[in-house]
Amino acid sequence: MRKTILSGMRPTGALHLGNLYGALKNWVRLQEDDSYERFYFVADWHALTTGFDASEDITENTLNMVIDWLAFGLDPDNNTIFVQSLVKEHAELFLLLSMITPVGWLERVPSYKDQIAQLGKAKTSNYGFLGYPVLMAADIIIYKAHLVPVGLDQVAHLEFARELVRHFNHLVKKDVFIEPQPLLTEVPKILGLDGRKMSKSYNNAIYLSDSEEETQKKIKVMFTDPRRKRKTDPGIAEECGVFMLHKIFTPKEKQEEIKLACSKAQIGCVECKKLLTKNVNEGLSEIRDKRNQLIKNKGKVKEILIEGSKKASRKAKETMEEVRDAIFSKARFG
Amino acid sequence: MRKTILSGMRPTGALHLGNLYGALKNWVRLQEDDSYERFYFVADWHALTTGFDASEDITENTLNMVIDWLAFGLDPDNNTIFVQSLVKEHAELFLLLSMITPVGWLERVPSYKDQIAQLGKAKTSNYGFLGYPVLMAADIIIYKAHLVPVGLDQVAHLEFARELVRHFNHLVKKDVFIEPQPLLTEVPKILGLDGRKMSKSYNNAIYLSDSEEETQKKIKVMFTDPRRKRKTDPGIAEECGVFMLHKIFTPKEKQEEIKLACSKAQIGCVECKKLLTKNVNEGLSEIRDKRNQLIKNKGKVKEILIEGSKKASRKAKETMEEVRDAIFSKARFG
Ligand code: SF4
Ligand code: SF4
Repeated sequence: MRKTILSGMRPTGALHLGNLYGALKNWVRLQEDDSYERFYFVADWHALTTGFDASEDITENTLNMVIDWLAFGLDPDNNTIFVQSLVKEHAELFLLLSMITPVGWLERVPSYKDQIAQLGKAKTSNYGFLGYPVLMAADIIIYKAHLVPVGLDQVAHLEFARELVRHFNHLVKKDVFIEPQPLLTEVPKILGLDGRKMSKSYNNAIYLSDSEEETQKKIKVMFTDPRRKRKTDPGIAEECGVFMLHKIFTPKEKQEEIKLACSKAQIGCVECKKLLTKNVNEGLSEIRDKRNQLIKNKGKVKEILIEGSKKASRKAKETMEEVRDAIFSKARFG
Repeated sequence: MRKTILSGMRPTGALHLGNLYGALKNWVRLQEDDSYERFYFVADWHALTTGFDASEDITENTLNMVIDWLAFGLDPDNNTIFVQSLVKEHAELFLLLSMITPVGWLERVPSYKDQIAQLGKAKTSNYGFLGYPVLMAADIIIYKAHLVPVGLDQVAHLEFARELVRHFNHLVKKDVFIEPQPLLTEVPKILGLDGRKMSKSYNNAIYLSDSEEETQKKIKVMFTDPRRKRKTDPGIAEECGVFMLHKIFTPKEKQEEIKLACSKAQIGCVECKKLLTKNVNEGLSEIRDKRNQLIKNKGKVKEILIEGSKKASRKAKETMEEVRDAIFSKARFG
């Protein structure tokens, strides 16, 4: 039997280089391997857990994000790409799992307190925010996913999902669900313009949707190794955000050259950035073209998502039949 | 426009006289009035809020309870009778409302602490139990119910639902939902065999499903006015559980006679109970016959519930279209 892989992203709209060469690169890589069945979804209900602000933008953000997925090479014929809110069974399973989830488990999820600290009480005092890991568990286990490509920060959520699976299976005395395992994937470190982690919320990111000129301007102001106050100061490329992008967009050999030159102050940051700009724009050129075509054909992207959601629904419905049998017995109605 | 009435019961299985001549009597009375559209549902998902114990009995309990509804005169052609878990939209709305419900509101619902005190921590520590009022609000407002026949103990839940309606409408800047009002209905006081409130959990109830002999035996051991230690002691009928049943099953004139005779010690409790037994069994005779017919035809009862659930679904789906429009904007998919 083929193993199932599942992952999702909140609909943030346009993706930046950190998203693309982090999670998405892994998704695209995984589609080479036919021993997996793959599901990727837009977690639009999750976008509501921290409030209804700008909920009217979610549809547009969904489309723009998925356009970037497709442009970057995620193949809709080879992966089931869908929208969470179009598969209502996630909500039913969320409700059923909520009946067996101790509140104490939720309060102990490490990200719960982190997020409260980060986002403030107002956005995190909702019942739905508290239950976020339950919805996330439902999203995963309804497809009986074996593997979930995650970053280290998501491992605790997955452990929560596994705990819930064991608890549910124990209560109904049947192995209805599978314990999902994390597929820890290497993600290159990508810094934003200001030297912090590249992130939409820091407003320090380079987007696929940026033009070549915007990209040039952004790279121009990018932080470099602070050791290089003057052009004659040597630097350590490995600690420079510009070089981290060279590692993605510049041929290996040239990378080594830059690293050496930087350490000997034989290359200036301006020159180094010019080269990077050229390589980024060349490297993204085809992807950006594809993106521009898709932007003009949002109807087709919608269709892909609706078709994918239908396919996901079929699998989710199958699982829910089993779930209802297990809870209410075979004699149940409808 | 016709006003909508909605009410529900947890699937407790067979109903006792307290249920029948309390809530159900009101439902049956309301069907005389055609200015109302009426929805009555089995709250089977709610039965899970305090755990999965005996969840496999829920379907059978649903059928047995609805058989009592029908036998007692609730007309399926004149009311929409349905099962909560067959209308998945309740789960979707529960999820969406959970995103706007402050946890603090839930902890303040008066019944929350009461139930924890009554049922103990183990059965009430679940996330779903905490969110019980959110699900209840979803059940009501998804049908845009104007009126909910409730007892005094449910008024706080309804106030919670109204608060949630105002909050939601405010957030989406549109009057999607209607604030449901309580329809406070008079409920006769009915005591159980032991003088406490008649209740399944006290094991002190007389059921429609009891045979005439069982009914006789139960009334025989029923507590009477403790003032009547001896047959020669006068009593106060109004404070006697036996008399409370006379008030339902015995003609008004005869009631007055008993009240007077009891106060003058001119009637013995044994005689008084004999008369009650006769009147209860006569009063329930037709209803019990109808019940016995329905028991033999559970397939038909299932059909009624499935048809009713389809009808309820249509209305729930309409509302959910509006809800999704309001949250995600008209441009959303699917
Ligand atoms: S030369 Fe390049 S790698 Fe070295 S600090 Fe400047 S920008 Fe960074
Ligand atoms: S005579 Fe009847 S009403 Fe009076 S105390 Fe006895 S049982 Fe109750």
